[in-house]
Amino acid sequence: MSTASLPDLLAAPADDLLVLTASLVAVPSVSRQEGELADHVERRLAERASQLARTRVGNTVIARTELGRERRIVLGGHLDTVPANGNAVPRLEGDVLHGLGSADMKGGLAVLLRLAEEITASEEPRFDCTLAFYEGEEIADEFNGLRHVFAERPDLLAGDFAVLLEPTGDHIEAGCQGTLHLRAHFEGERAHSARPWMGRNAIYAAAGVLERLAAHETDTVLVDGLPYRESLQVVRIEGGVANNVVPDECTIVVNRRFAPKYSVDEARAQVEKLLVGADRVEVINASPAAPPNLGHPLAAEFVEVLGLDVEPKLGWTDVARFASRDIPAVNFGPGDPDVAHTADERVSRASVEQCYAAFARFLGLAA
Amino acid sequence: MSTASLPDLLAAPADDLLVLTASLVAVPSVSRQEGELADHVERRLAERASQLARTRVGNTVIARTELGRERRIVLGGHLDTVPANGNAVPRLEGDVLHGLGSADMKGGLAVLLRLAEEITASEEPRFDCTLAFYEGEEIADEFNGLRHVFAERPDLLAGDFAVLLEPTGDHIEAGCQGTLHLRAHFEGERAHSARPWMGRNAIYAAAGVLERLAAHETDTVLVDGLPYRESLQVVRIEGGVANNVVPDECTIVVNRRFAPKYSVDEARAQVEKLLVGADRVEVINASPAAPPNLGHPLAAEFVEVLGLDVEPKLGWTDVARFASRDIPAVNFGPGDPDVAHTADERVSRASVEQCYAAFARFLGLAA
Repeated sequence: MSTASLPDLLAAPADDLLVLTASLVAVPSVSRQEGELADHVERRLAERASQLARTRVGNTVIARTELGRERRIVLGGHLDTVPANGNAVPRLEGDVLHGLGSADMKGGLAVLLRLAEEITASEEPRFDCTLAFYEGEEIADEFNGLRHVFAERPDLLAGDFAVLLEPTGDHIEAGCQGTLHLRAHFEGERAHSARPWMGRNAIYAAAGVLERLAAHETDTVLVDGLPYRESLQVVRIEGGVANNVVPDECTIVVNRRFAPKYSVDEARAQVEKLLVGADRVEVINASPAAPPNLGHPLAAEFVEVLGLDVEPKLGWTDVARFASRDIPAVNFGPGDPDVAHTADERVSRASVEQCYAAFARFLGLAA
Repeated sequence: MSTASLPDLLAAPADDLLVLTASLVAVPSVSRQEGELADHVERRLAERASQLARTRVGNTVIARTELGRERRIVLGGHLDTVPANGNAVPRLEGDVLHGLGSADMKGGLAVLLRLAEEITASEEPRFDCTLAFYEGEEIADEFNGLRHVFAERPDLLAGDFAVLLEPTGDHIEAGCQGTLHLRAHFEGERAHSARPWMGRNAIYAAAGVLERLAAHETDTVLVDGLPYRESLQVVRIEGGVANNVVPDECTIVVNRRFAPKYSVDEARAQVEKLLVGADRVEVINASPAAPPNLGHPLAAEFVEVLGLDVEPKLGWTDVARFASRDIPAVNFGPGDPDVAHTADERVSRASVEQCYAAFARFLGLAA
């Protein structure tokens, strides 16, 4: 592997999962520019898994079996990546692929593409399957492909259990925490900075609240026995008019990540209590948490068949979108979540191959 | 006055000081765009005070008598204004002129233009006079016309006493406070906001220092019996990478205005003590204070002839530039400093006429 050049590898039919991942990394797909990769996925499905029913909604591609099985599993992977950080070109080093999106989540897309082929080749898959390759996950929710399909063609995403192939390393991540962004405005009155007593400094008005937020200790909340460690961070602060003017406005953006024990409204009330002193607080966005749902038979079976540890998912993922529609969902995909969105994003051969094998086992495909 | 239209008034020879002020307001001269107004001033001096020696340096115009008097008085007015704020077009309402720059400081320029004519017409002016119409006062020091002339042709600004025609209302403002801008950097470490314990929040690192600055009480410092009320303001704050990232940097800009009792280094040391906890502090700019110099014979005579109250100047002005070259200087000009840089900037007829009369008395011109 390590001696062959990448172009040579990409020219060969990609039956190797790591090479297939590299070929997907080689097609740039920063959010809002997923068209080429969606075309690529559609073409490959047409060539190698033509029996699947394919539908395209925007740059989201949905492929489904129609075997009449009693239960349907939905597997989802987003096509988009965050912007490149000097890592746009994939690079194979032995059994490790480096490059933008290798972990988050083109390794997962490679697993999905291989599963599409094997499901159609298999004689007795245990479930009907829906594979969703979707756009717009890394940016504002309004661009999310699953959101669009749920709105326009919810039938395409119906199912009994869902797995999102977000990178989770060698364990399953159950549920997800909710996320809430609030913007707090502090107001003052402008004045020349040589005569500040003629005005009121909005940055000073924010100082006490900032100090309170900095000192706040967040909880770890147990749900289904899983420890959801919450967080509360000021992620932005902005204030100032000119260097000789007492500022009349200061704004902070607070991000709270909350355990599935709480609703959005409860989480919001908790943060607003800490923001007392602000002149105005507005919600920028709010996404509910997803319960782990480990008591659900399919979720329990998935955990048992894979035989892996289950940990709580701390970041928000689209499992919450399924959970809010009463479809239990978990996260399980190749790659280390800690390298996602970093310059040295990478994924190993073992990680993609073990992930594929786990899904094949669960779905009842040939090993 | 109030019934004539502005164009009619501007077409008439402007012997009326308020109309002359209006004609200067009618020529836009936002900082870095003073060329047209400098041309206008040069032309008027050529037509009406041709005996004065004129020199142009950039868009700064210097006009000087060469009478061989023992002492020379330098009078300065800046040509530029801050950006318009819905007040670009001058408007006369009875005896009040509204418009950008009317107070800061085209009323003062009108007084200077009239003085230029009367000095050349006068038989016995008491002093030689230098009139400086200069560019770039309202913006960064590097653009300041006096700075350029002091650097390139210091002989043009030599003198025994200087007056800056900044708006001071009906009193004289002595000396000026120094001004110091420091930028303090607080560092952290990026992490996903769902896992903040993997990083360190730079905004939280700044919170304690902000709280300390907000609580800080500044002094009023007596110099030559004048109360210089100091100030210390955070005028800018900035931090944040993305709404889901623990920020790794937060910067604040602090502006300290300090009494002429202190040097720049002393003022800086005082602020740095309050910034303990910052990872790095840099000086953005520093301008020394100017002592009131009221003991100087010409300053004392100016105060006595005018018979007006003397107050300390809290904002920084170019008097400090003269003071640092051992030329005592004070501020005295028409207009209320509190309306400078506001949408309703204005100046009254009485203000410009009384200011002119005061200078005429001091310089020994015909009333």
